[in-house]
Amino acid sequence: MYSTNTIMRKILVIGSGKSTSYLIKYLLDKSVSENLHITIGDIDINHAKKLIRSHKNASAITLDVFDRASYVEAIKDVDIVVSMLPARFHTEVAKDCIRFRKHLVTASYVSEEMQALDVEAKANGLVFMNEIGVDPGIDHMSAMQIIDGIRSKGGKIILFESFTGGLVAPESDNNLWNYKFTWNPRNVVVAGQGGAAKFLQEGTYKYIPYNRLFRRTEFFDIAGYGQFEGYANRDSLKYQSVYGLDNVKTLYRGTMRRIGFSRAWNIFVQLGLTDDSYEIDDSANMSYRDFINAFLPYSPTDSVELKLRHALKIDQDDIVWDKLLELDLFNADKKVGLDKATPAQILQKILEDKWSLNHEDKDMIVMYHKFGYELNGENHQIDSTMVTLGEDQTYTAMAKTVGLPVAIATLAILNKKITTPGVQIPITPEVYNPILEELKDYGIKFTEKEVPYLGYNPLNV
Amino acid sequence: MYSTNTIMRKILVIGSGKSTSYLIKYLLDKSVSENLHITIGDIDINHAKKLIRSHKNASAITLDVFDRASYVEAIKDVDIVVSMLPARFHTEVAKDCIRFRKHLVTASYVSEEMQALDVEAKANGLVFMNEIGVDPGIDHMSAMQIIDGIRSKGGKIILFESFTGGLVAPESDNNLWNYKFTWNPRNVVVAGQGGAAKFLQEGTYKYIPYNRLFRRTEFFDIAGYGQFEGYANRDSLKYQSVYGLDNVKTLYRGTMRRIGFSRAWNIFVQLGLTDDSYEIDDSANMSYRDFINAFLPYSPTDSVELKLRHALKIDQDDIVWDKLLELDLFNADKKVGLDKATPAQILQKILEDKWSLNHEDKDMIVMYHKFGYELNGENHQIDSTMVTLGEDQTYTAMAKTVGLPVAIATLAILNKKITTPGVQIPITPEVYNPILEELKDYGIKFTEKEVPYLGYNPLNV
Repeated sequence: MYSTNTIMRKILVIGSGKSTSYLIKYLLDKSVSENLHITIGDIDINHAKKLIRSHKNASAITLDVFDRASYVEAIKDVDIVVSMLPARFHTEVAKDCIRFRKHLVTASYVSEEMQALDVEAKANGLVFMNEIGVDPGIDHMSAMQIIDGIRSKGGKIILFESFTGGLVAPESDNNLWNYKFTWNPRNVVVAGQGGAAKFLQEGTYKYIPYNRLFRRTEFFDIAGYGQFEGYANRDSLKYQSVYGLDNVKTLYRGTMRRIGFSRAWNIFVQLGLTDDSYEIDDSANMSYRDFINAFLPYSPTDSVELKLRHALKIDQDDIVWDKLLELDLFNADKKVGLDKATPAQILQKILEDKWSLNHEDKDMIVMYHKFGYELNGENHQIDSTMVTLGEDQTYTAMAKTVGLPVAIATLAILNKKITTPGVQIPITPEVYNPILEELKDYGIKFTEKEVPYLGYNPLNV
Repeated sequence: MYSTNTIMRKILVIGSGKSTSYLIKYLLDKSVSENLHITIGDIDINHAKKLIRSHKNASAITLDVFDRASYVEAIKDVDIVVSMLPARFHTEVAKDCIRFRKHLVTASYVSEEMQALDVEAKANGLVFMNEIGVDPGIDHMSAMQIIDGIRSKGGKIILFESFTGGLVAPESDNNLWNYKFTWNPRNVVVAGQGGAAKFLQEGTYKYIPYNRLFRRTEFFDIAGYGQFEGYANRDSLKYQSVYGLDNVKTLYRGTMRRIGFSRAWNIFVQLGLTDDSYEIDDSANMSYRDFINAFLPYSPTDSVELKLRHALKIDQDDIVWDKLLELDLFNADKKVGLDKATPAQILQKILEDKWSLNHEDKDMIVMYHKFGYELNGENHQIDSTMVTLGEDQTYTAMAKTVGLPVAIATLAILNKKITTPGVQIPITPEVYNPILEELKDYGIKFTEKEVPYLGYNPLNV
């Protein structure tokens, strides 16, 4: 491995999907001053080519993860590997990184298989940096910076809440749901399924079943951007020990939407439209109206609309109704057109009609942390917020907030600014301080403010 | 195999659990006139001994299904085997029945593994009669007798609904839920989970998600017994083809409870108390009140009671509340006492405190069939109902309705009244006519009445 940047350092980026535009742009922009050569491997070489635009320090190659020989060839020639593949493919890449002694960066959650490589990575002096996108990634870094800051003053963390949302930018926000798909629509449709959400509230474990998840939201206000709401993630406690919060009284992580989204979404949950576990009969020939009607009792006379209002007790003057109408849910002419589809797949199709980004639409990433702490016998609270807007359909806020931390970390590893070996996530000052600092140059910055500590017991009764 | 009853015929009954009291009593009562010897095998020989009470034509043996040698020894010496084991053990027994050429009777659903033995059973001339208890069993027989009767008149079935319930007898019905556990409590707690209920209503497939299942009930009246309600089984269409109902417009099968049970049960579903997929933290040391509170938001002041009323919008004067109070749900002193328990396991514990049968309690089996049919251009309907009461805690209605059809079928096979070989269920006149006739002698009889055909479109609009 090279120790200075007088020699060309080689980076392999595997995958050139939606989230890689900024990652690649950052590396290309630095490639001359930092003496980098970037190889972009994708199963579709044109995809890769489009992003490098014949930059002299970059090349595109065809790379099929199922053709092991091809990516082994690509890996063994570089200094560091950035895997932007779907998470399930990282382990194989990581094993080859150990074999050929290469550092590795991914934006994905550390799987058990990845964690199992920790000993070997350490033994080989390799940095395997994961969860360094936006969520997970910027959330870890921005939270740990403040948590460590509070601790260094002698404060004791008693509350930590953290919410992130991928939304549509205000200027492109023109539907009643205040929502468009800025990422994988399927993940949005099945969000929250697979078990009760679990979190910690004032020292007690709390559980929310899926059918209540979208009715137990809380609200946030971000100056200049208005109100948001958040619903709980499945496991808020995942990072409790990692963050050193074993004695925290409240620990709550979740997903942000615009106010009113969850109450309307709950209608889909209650009807059963988000179920992904079975196929609807003859789904291809169903109309949207037939689909909704399949979840309501038969009636020779009553309309699908009234049956739905009655089943879910939706008042005549409830504005949630307009959200349903906007989706064209009751259209008897539009066909589902999907064979052997699950309810979730059909719902996704219906939503994609209305929630897909237009060419000129921009996206937005929002993050809201609350830190409650005790210092010198008094309770304090810091709220920290971040909003990042996308520029266009290629340079999205999602690509920016996922890709820049990955890119900055990659260069920092090459430049030996991040050196701790092993499978890790960005929760140490060595990692988060320089990266958060550099992210500011790209407009990704947090606004902190001291607020009165409220917790869940403002009057201390 | 023996062809007359002048020679002693040998029956092996494997398992002597709750549902076998009547089965064994029937066989013992017939043993002299029919020249039968009955061997009862159970892992606990005292269990078996208690039921045969030193009858001269019976013997008890210790039989462990995990000790294959022991039951092979028992099987090879008899003419017919009755397996009253839990369903998962039937396949091994059935394979040995083929090996030693013995008939087999079970009250369980035909598993894929059992069905796979059909060819071999037929090749060996063996009757493998399954699903000949109450549900499945009496439901099949009583329905097919009427369906075949309608068809023989030239009628065409357009609607079939069938509901069964295991309940507490009116004289022992002394709680607000009008319910006690007369069978496996766990099955009651997790009933309806694992996917949407699917059925056919006026020619259209309908789907009910779990969180709506207990709010989509329908009502029934049984003369002399008052009102009942029914909620849908997961798959109402399971027997559509088997019953020859491929062109039926409405097909709906379900479970019966007393009116009001489901609306109250839905509170548990909505809160998440029936979830069996994860463990509650520190469940052993929780009070009942803590358990309920774990599913409600934290408050320093508001009571668990008010938080529950608010979350589920239960009015101050709603009688459903008394059902919750009766269960002592809000007791802060009663401990759960179960380690690493799921919500469903904890709920079961709470319910068992109140819903277990007392020594003098009697149970009740109810069944309600509706048959809609078209004959000579007109629509007709037959409703057929059955109520069977238990005698005591040993000779329960459940044991009677499960055990008697099994016992009668066993003797009928020995006496060559049922001869069709192969893996089968009791849906042919050869089987259902004699059995239903004989069941009448034991008080298990159906009351049929012609009612106006209503279907779901009474006004034919």
